[in-house]
Amino acid sequence: IESRLPNVGTTIFTVMSRLAQECGAINLSQGFPDFNAEDVLFERVAHWMRSGHNQYAPMGGVAPLREAIARKVSGLYGTDFDPETEITVTAGATQALFTAVAALVHPGDEVIVFEPVYDSYAPAIELQGGRVVRMQLAAPEYRPDWDAVAAVITPRTRMIMINSPHNPTATVWSSEDMARLAALTRGTGIVIVSDEVYEHIVFDGLRHESCAQYPELAARSVVVSSFGKTYHITGWKVGYVVAPRELMAEFRKVHQFNVFTVNTPVQLALADYMGDASRHERLAAFYQGKRDYFRDALAGSRFELLPSSGTYFQLARYGAISGEADSTFVQRLTRDTGVAAIPVSAFFADGRDERVIRFCFAKNEATLAAACEKLRRV
Amino acid sequence: IESRLPNVGTTIFTVMSRLAQECGAINLSQGFPDFNAEDVLFERVAHWMRSGHNQYAPMGGVAPLREAIARKVSGLYGTDFDPETEITVTAGATQALFTAVAALVHPGDEVIVFEPVYDSYAPAIELQGGRVVRMQLAAPEYRPDWDAVAAVITPRTRMIMINSPHNPTATVWSSEDMARLAALTRGTGIVIVSDEVYEHIVFDGLRHESCAQYPELAARSVVVSSFGKTYHITGWKVGYVVAPRELMAEFRKVHQFNVFTVNTPVQLALADYMGDASRHERLAAFYQGKRDYFRDALAGSRFELLPSSGTYFQLARYGAISGEADSTFVQRLTRDTGVAAIPVSAFFADGRDERVIRFCFAKNEATLAAACEKLRRV
Ligand SMILES: CSCCC(=O)C(=O)O
Ligand SMILES: CSCCC(=O)C(=O)O
Repeated sequence: IESRLPNVGTTIFTVMSRLAQECGAINLSQGFPDFNAEDVLFERVAHWMRSGHNQYAPMGGVAPLREAIARKVSGLYGTDFDPETEITVTAGATQALFTAVAALVHPGDEVIVFEPVYDSYAPAIELQGGRVVRMQLAAPEYRPDWDAVAAVITPRTRMIMINSPHNPTATVWSSEDMARLAALTRGTGIVIVSDEVYEHIVFDGLRHESCAQYPELAARSVVVSSFGKTYHITGWKVGYVVAPRELMAEFRKVHQFNVFTVNTPVQLALADYMGDASRHERLAAFYQGKRDYFRDALAGSRFELLPSSGTYFQLARYGAISGEADSTFVQRLTRDTGVAAIPVSAFFADGRDERVIRFCFAKNEATLAAACEKLRRV
Repeated sequence: IESRLPNVGTTIFTVMSRLAQECGAINLSQGFPDFNAEDVLFERVAHWMRSGHNQYAPMGGVAPLREAIARKVSGLYGTDFDPETEITVTAGATQALFTAVAALVHPGDEVIVFEPVYDSYAPAIELQGGRVVRMQLAAPEYRPDWDAVAAVITPRTRMIMINSPHNPTATVWSSEDMARLAALTRGTGIVIVSDEVYEHIVFDGLRHESCAQYPELAARSVVVSSFGKTYHITGWKVGYVVAPRELMAEFRKVHQFNVFTVNTPVQLALADYMGDASRHERLAAFYQGKRDYFRDALAGSRFELLPSSGTYFQLARYGAISGEADSTFVQRLTRDTGVAAIPVSAFFADGRDERVIRFCFAKNEATLAAACEKLRRV
């Protein structure tokens, strides 16, 4: 069999979570909470199942959920999207990103991504015959170099994939970044795919900059978000896409033949649950508390913590501990110390290794305390 | 925007279900039950949610579900598949088919399909730059012409997509068909993608012929099935793929970056529910009863019913009623008679119209009675 993705192995998240389990290590690698979502959400799912809402949802999603998403986006970012034609519920944000690329990238098109880059972006592009153009975000600031971006734009540039708050670096783009992005793409046919799954997890009074809040950007963006990150249900695999009508029409042409639609009772339950917008408002403080706890608890360790301004991730340099490659280091950390993390080199195509690893702090305090106790002994 | 699927509109299922709803018609178009699944299944989902199983499942699916699938396939078809490396849970059968094509079809490859063909197959192939080679199944028998298939196989033939029990024709392939398929593909690199979502719905003592039951075919097949059709939960969007290790490795390379994984509490609940294999055994008789009821109730009508040997669909010729195109006829039937159906021309690339429409009989008797009463008056 000739592989369509010859350079692709198993995603690092699967690799590290499996290793963590094998070793009985505390799993701070793959990003997911170790606490549960609220019972009221489960009760809504059970309600909709029992009352017989178990058949196909409309292709774009159930109406109440699309309407709730439209209200949220309008309330937070001030732009109105039509639930009928501009919002689609997806089987998670990953499926949304994959589908957006499949629907919009033609063979030979160039797509700009920012490294360290989430590991699903490049394979999705390459599978469609697109060319991945990689810009590097340099440690420890990890800010985009917009002049460098301008320099790589060509007539074949079809898409720019962005992600703020950024996984894995935990940086948050500023309004200046958005202005530069707008200026760079003005008058071009470039589509922006904006992965905003951590939109509600921004710290220290910073504000999430959404492509949905700048009319000029909104008009050429596919904005992707996730219920998994926001409601502590990463395993439910529900996300959504907001995009202007013409882009959404292309998105749906592929979506309808990829997953077609998403779990009906879960969608209806999420629509109910979205009614209380204060949940979104409380999320940042909730995770900022965890970030602070985690950082404080590692203050006495030999890990050098980089800033974490958003997401539920924390980067750490381990150069003071070891000169090993990061992939070797995390394996040893998992096996010997009992704490699993993600090697950031996994997010660089050339395997570039800056001796930085990523921890997930979406955990109960007891978990974080136990992990930090181990990490302090390294 | 230059479309990647310029010839694709909105799937006929969305179009007809929407029209049915607008007109308040009885919806026998899109295939789904109008009765509910069992409470015990919902209780299992609620149990796993409440007990905190809401984060990412392993990429291939939760272990108990994969093991239950392996047991089922082994019990029914006599072939053992390794749950770890040869079974993957998917976000429905459509996603499984789309992913199999994306993972295995290279640009320029030829893929053979049988028309009338489920409407997701061709766009999935074309999106990957594959060439769709269409064989026609001729009414009213709709049997494959294997000599004609042999004649279109070329060195570029990469895949044959088959579907038995067949949607929309309700035919069931025989062991002779499987033998011809095996002979035709022997010694070639052709992969078979076998859509077996109606595997448990076969009537009149016929037996479902699975690619999983012929070792030679199993070794080069991606077998796709669906919990939606089997457990009356089409809206949950859970299916699975069984394939030999090398094919599955390629499948998963794409799967992990498409949806990554599938709803965790739902998977765990399905694993519990699969424990009782008698549910599979009872399904054929259950739907045969509905088929017989529907056919009997239409006996006095002017619709000419074709044989229905499997699936929950019934084809009907309406030539005695009208000379209209089938798409016009179903629209009128929905609006004026109050019963929605699917025009079979939607499953032919050239729109070939044999004046045949498809009804779904996965409905309560009261629904079927009301629909048939209307249809008898046409
Ligand atoms: C798809 S599993 C990975 C979860 C995640 O987004 C992360 O850990 O970065
Ligand atoms: C994906 S909606 C269509 C359901 C179905 O399989 C059918 O009606 O044929």
